[in-house]
Amino acid sequence: MSKKICLTGVKPTGKVHLGNYIGAIKPAIEMSNSGDYDSYYFIADYHSLIGVHDAKLMRQYIYDVAATWLAMGLDPKKVTLYKQSDVPEILELNWIVNCFTSKGLMNRAHAYKAMVQENELEKRDRDVGVNMGLYSYPILMACDIMILNADVVPVGADQLQHIEIARDIAHSFNNTYVKDYEKYRLYLEKNPEVRLDKSKIKLTPPQAIIREDGKLLTGLDGRKMSKSYNNHIPLFSTENELKKLINRITTDSSDPTSPKNPDESLIFEFYQEFATKDQADALRAWYLRGIGWGEAKMELLNVLNNMLKEPREKYAELMSDTKKIDLILEEGASRVRPKAQALIKDIKQTVGVL
Amino acid sequence: MSKKICLTGVKPTGKVHLGNYIGAIKPAIEMSNSGDYDSYYFIADYHSLIGVHDAKLMRQYIYDVAATWLAMGLDPKKVTLYKQSDVPEILELNWIVNCFTSKGLMNRAHAYKAMVQENELEKRDRDVGVNMGLYSYPILMACDIMILNADVVPVGADQLQHIEIARDIAHSFNNTYVKDYEKYRLYLEKNPEVRLDKSKIKLTPPQAIIREDGKLLTGLDGRKMSKSYNNHIPLFSTENELKKLINRITTDSSDPTSPKNPDESLIFEFYQEFATKDQADALRAWYLRGIGWGEAKMELLNVLNNMLKEPREKYAELMSDTKKIDLILEEGASRVRPKAQALIKDIKQTVGVL
Repeated sequence: MSKKICLTGVKPTGKVHLGNYIGAIKPAIEMSNSGDYDSYYFIADYHSLIGVHDAKLMRQYIYDVAATWLAMGLDPKKVTLYKQSDVPEILELNWIVNCFTSKGLMNRAHAYKAMVQENELEKRDRDVGVNMGLYSYPILMACDIMILNADVVPVGADQLQHIEIARDIAHSFNNTYVKDYEKYRLYLEKNPEVRLDKSKIKLTPPQAIIREDGKLLTGLDGRKMSKSYNNHIPLFSTENELKKLINRITTDSSDPTSPKNPDESLIFEFYQEFATKDQADALRAWYLRGIGWGEAKMELLNVLNNMLKEPREKYAELMSDTKKIDLILEEGASRVRPKAQALIKDIKQTVGVL
Repeated sequence: MSKKICLTGVKPTGKVHLGNYIGAIKPAIEMSNSGDYDSYYFIADYHSLIGVHDAKLMRQYIYDVAATWLAMGLDPKKVTLYKQSDVPEILELNWIVNCFTSKGLMNRAHAYKAMVQENELEKRDRDVGVNMGLYSYPILMACDIMILNADVVPVGADQLQHIEIARDIAHSFNNTYVKDYEKYRLYLEKNPEVRLDKSKIKLTPPQAIIREDGKLLTGLDGRKMSKSYNNHIPLFSTENELKKLINRITTDSSDPTSPKNPDESLIFEFYQEFATKDQADALRAWYLRGIGWGEAKMELLNVLNNMLKEPREKYAELMSDTKKIDLILEEGASRVRPKAQALIKDIKQTVGVL
């Protein structure tokens, strides 16, 4: 039996920091390297277009996100990496399923509701600042997934609704064009061990894999790491930059030789995340024996710098010659498009325009 | 200077009647035959998909509308006839401009507002029965037009809003990516004799040509001709069917030799529409001299049947071998796609995804 298809979209929105890496990039790369799935990762440039209306920035973001993932270990031989806008069939499917998606579904989408709430708070018209891309992007997201008949999509808990919407849309379309679909759907629901037979249906309702990334990295000031708090460590900081950033971590004035609690130390928290188990155990022992904050910071710098040295160079290399990225993305698109074309042809025949 | 590009969309929604022919098809075919414009007519199958969720019906509607227009005199050598779904670039443009279209614009669209009003009247949620195709189709319509940089679109007064929306979208996009666009736009507004230089902008804001088709054909019962009143004459009725339908026109019991007022006679109103000027003058004289209703109906049948005889045969021929229609539509798409591809490439480079 063939492997399940796993899809992940990555929205290009500028340089990433260590928090993004730990929370999303690292688990996704590990997942693609595990070989458990037939993996497709795409750069969601058309989602970025909702907010990024600057061509230079858009281009930079696209290359940046591709270079980052490749530098951090994404292997384009193990996962098909492509750019959303290189697969125009997604947009054909997007219109088609528009006609099978009730507007009410979009009214209830989280991102839109948050905008409405903000507008209402400010006593403005509820739709101020909402463009039709923002309003309808959950449909595009459903098409990103369905164009490949993807089985599973790893998401954070906050994105679960997107998968629910995609499932709703698939059901609505299948209900219209697949005989006895509702019966088949209920049968599958009652028999979770039975695998979906894609030849029996038209669009595959995807399943969510909830990422256990409650793991949010703490920022330099003790709050959640976030660019908007300016408490973050950019992923590809130079050694010098890393040193300066680590020095911003506040410490108490306790004696350098006095024992310290590793579990109350931000430095140790970071260290643990990026060191091997043996290294972490060794540092823990040193903490309990007594360690100077300067020494602890130096250990953190070393482990971080060691981990990032190679990726940093690979990232710089990729960004200095983006043709390599172009080639990888073209190769990815050329693997995806025949599948997308076959699906869209089938769907167009199904609705009767072909 | 090259001719202006004129675009017309025809939504396939089932068999047409004489009222549709007089109101829309006849003036559009005359316009295309005039040679005043570089004409593009497309079958708007993706608009039909909003409501037609039956593949067999959809296919039939598409062929029906193509065969009807061709039978009534549309010359595919003088006008490029194509099917919307054969030009996938329209859907790429559709997503892109979604990101530059404020949701408020869609809230104010007539068709959506009418649905909301109906729902409110019935005390239902305002969006009951509204799918995202219905809600957002004015954007798709704008893309149908802009993908070819069309200059003018002939519309009925009720469709003027669609052209306004298309203009708004083009302005919004151009304002983002064309330097000093607002200045240029105001300059053109103040100097209507200056023709738009398309090389200076990205998307062409189309202009409406208001069709003077207040001309609505009266139905057999004296109300406006409409399928929903069942007072219509299908365009390709057989001679026998025509005879039966014309006999349904109610007349008074006045003497067959008494003079009659042609301007109060539905039979004469029809006759005028389909006869030559000379024929109409002759029948008017006969009315004033004294005509029997049976005679008048016979005259109407003859003129209608004569006009429709050839188209009826051509229609039947086309519908019996739809491959000819396929060929014409394929040929049309092959003329449109290079233009659409060039435009979408430019637009994708403009926004920075290419």
